[in-house]
Amino acid sequence: MAAQSKATAVAGAIAGIVREQGRVEVQAIGAGAVNQAVKAIAIARGFLALEGLNVVCIPGFADVEIDGQGRTAIRFAVEPR
Amino acid sequence: MAAQSKATAVAGAIAGIVREQGRVEVQAIGAGAVNQAVKAIAIARGFLALEGLNVVCIPGFADVEIDGQGRTAIRFAVEPR
Repeated sequence: MAAQSKATAVAGAIAGIVREQGRVEVQAIGAGAVNQAVKAIAIARGFLALEGLNVVCIPGFADVEIDGQGRTAIRFAVEPR
Repeated sequence: MAAQSKATAVAGAIAGIVREQGRVEVQAIGAGAVNQAVKAIAIARGFLALEGLNVVCIPGFADVEIDGQGRTAIRFAVEPR
């Protein structure tokens, strides 16, 4: 997820994957991307609540490599409560 | 929670309130503060997991007023799964 990602579009994708596969992981690096990810998850939670699905989010850290550089990402697991 | 807040210090506070009161709500406005809040919640989750408490986070939107201006905050409920 990038800082420029549109939260509502990503929310639709998150909701779709949770519906089909039961859960999804969203990864973001940097404050802008983390902020957009959180907004998208909050919106997706609203979409899924309308269908009776109560999802929660579990944030954690993940080490990733980008262009040969080690970075710390935030990884959110989104899954039913 | 502000963008300048130290994530580990806030994590300790979050863990303490969850231990004592069972849950806590964390509110953040702006990408920097939301990012710090998420990091603090992820760290607090680690602290509480060591004690056998599995906490999740539920993000939502909240309308707040700051200096007479309406703003949209992100509010995280942190509670046992």
